[in-house]
Amino acid sequence: MKAEAGAFLDHVRPDINAALDELLPGDNAPPSQVHRAMRHSIFGGGKRIRPALCIAGYSIYFQDYSRILPVACALEMVHTYSLIHDDLPAMDDDDFRRGIPSCHKQFGEAIAILAGDALLTLAFEVVTDCRHFPADARARAAAELARALGTRDGMIAGQVFDLEAEGQPLDAARLETIHRAKTGALLSTSVWLGAYLGGASPAEAEQVLNFGRKIGLAFQIVDDVLDETETKETLGKTAGKDRERGKATYPALYGIERSREMVREVTEQARRAVQPLGARARLLIEVADFLETRCS
Amino acid sequence: MKAEAGAFLDHVRPDINAALDELLPGDNAPPSQVHRAMRHSIFGGGKRIRPALCIAGYSIYFQDYSRILPVACALEMVHTYSLIHDDLPAMDDDDFRRGIPSCHKQFGEAIAILAGDALLTLAFEVVTDCRHFPADARARAAAELARALGTRDGMIAGQVFDLEAEGQPLDAARLETIHRAKTGALLSTSVWLGAYLGGASPAEAEQVLNFGRKIGLAFQIVDDVLDETETKETLGKTAGKDRERGKATYPALYGIERSREMVREVTEQARRAVQPLGARARLLIEVADFLETRCS
Repeated sequence: MKAEAGAFLDHVRPDINAALDELLPGDNAPPSQVHRAMRHSIFGGGKRIRPALCIAGYSIYFQDYSRILPVACALEMVHTYSLIHDDLPAMDDDDFRRGIPSCHKQFGEAIAILAGDALLTLAFEVVTDCRHFPADARARAAAELARALGTRDGMIAGQVFDLEAEGQPLDAARLETIHRAKTGALLSTSVWLGAYLGGASPAEAEQVLNFGRKIGLAFQIVDDVLDETETKETLGKTAGKDRERGKATYPALYGIERSREMVREVTEQARRAVQPLGARARLLIEVADFLETRCS
Repeated sequence: MKAEAGAFLDHVRPDINAALDELLPGDNAPPSQVHRAMRHSIFGGGKRIRPALCIAGYSIYFQDYSRILPVACALEMVHTYSLIHDDLPAMDDDDFRRGIPSCHKQFGEAIAILAGDALLTLAFEVVTDCRHFPADARARAAAELARALGTRDGMIAGQVFDLEAEGQPLDAARLETIHRAKTGALLSTSVWLGAYLGGASPAEAEQVLNFGRKIGLAFQIVDDVLDETETKETLGKTAGKDRERGKATYPALYGIERSREMVREVTEQARRAVQPLGARARLLIEVADFLETRCS
């Protein structure tokens, strides 16, 4: 099965991209500067992991994933907003992202700040407007998305913890707190949203959420390992920056080999979390396999 | 009646501030840096015009406004997010806001960017989570709020139009387009949200929206006039910056006197828009009177 890891992502990516193209205002729609900047960052590569996780969660209940596509796209919008703001000179100061100039390098800082703001805003419009789902599910989905992005254990919390930890001595608990908030919350919410909107029972939603948490952790360790081991060419952004800046990373704390081993362990825990779902968890397992192979 | 203009704002402000205090994480809640920055900007003054407009819209239907308070607060959060990002060096580069250091001067740019992001995110959490209202109303409210803030005739559109217009020749149509998007959309949505969640009929919601559009225009002209005529001490921010930077303003196009006359005309149109509501529009009229007296 692992030989096919990535097949599901390759299969859904064109549909996700087509849906994003429909949801984002056109390059020439005024004010065109900000729409170009939004599209530059959304369509400048990206594996679409979060939308794919959302679709995989929904696929437990429905084969046809057209209804969940707007919500899946909203997840890519909020992820891209976070990258645009992260890359700003005042934050990580990255000139490249996915092998192309980062948003502020291409459009200037003012437009980049606004493009990030706009993607975040549009994501909430899309989720609350998505009439395929009952209003109470849309309202709940938007509230949970906001929590995953917020300052109480959400993405912004993780970013601030990360800023505060620069140059500080590392420990395992702190590292996990940072990553659970910074990338874990949105990744686990992505898969949860798909299952929840697909009609998961509370018990199933909990299994899926546990899967998402493990996957989120695996994903972050993989990302840290790749930052250490890959070159700028294959990574598409400046490599080794985390270490340079004394950032809290898994390889810095555990070394590369132990980090890779942890990826395997945590991915296995993810698979076990959705074992009760049987064959319906097939696509979730596929995404897990893909993430595992990325750094092996 | 005009002698009392402002009495309603003074009356509701403490309740709005108390509700904001409940909704925002505490200064010491980790990650404390971003929570302090959010509170610095939320509680660093502010007339609470948008929350008051929302409450005034709701007051057409209910005297007790406790249920609408969280939504009213969400409007102040998104307004404050826009001020924090607007003040950044890459945008308007303002060191002061409401007489105190702007967010990035006090906390640094990275935290200011994240504090703005966090307030925007929290606003959507609050609106979609506000259980006093049925789920379909919450979902619609959040979607309309997102549109008022977005790139298609919303606040971000206005900010980009404004950036694009710097140093360009002015004309009346362009000036109105900028301001309708930049401040008008959120102001009119504030009052609309109150009326809508209060249970307005479609016809009433339309009257209130028209009121909001006129009030939004009046508000912007007043703001432009004050930027020209007030000193830094009374304004709480650097005065005359708009003119310095060749920004599109009403006084620049029409002169101070004609601008003041326009405020009176547009406010009168606002009052007429809600005449069909009779005495129930009392608080809306009070806010209109207050805005009119600000620059006379």
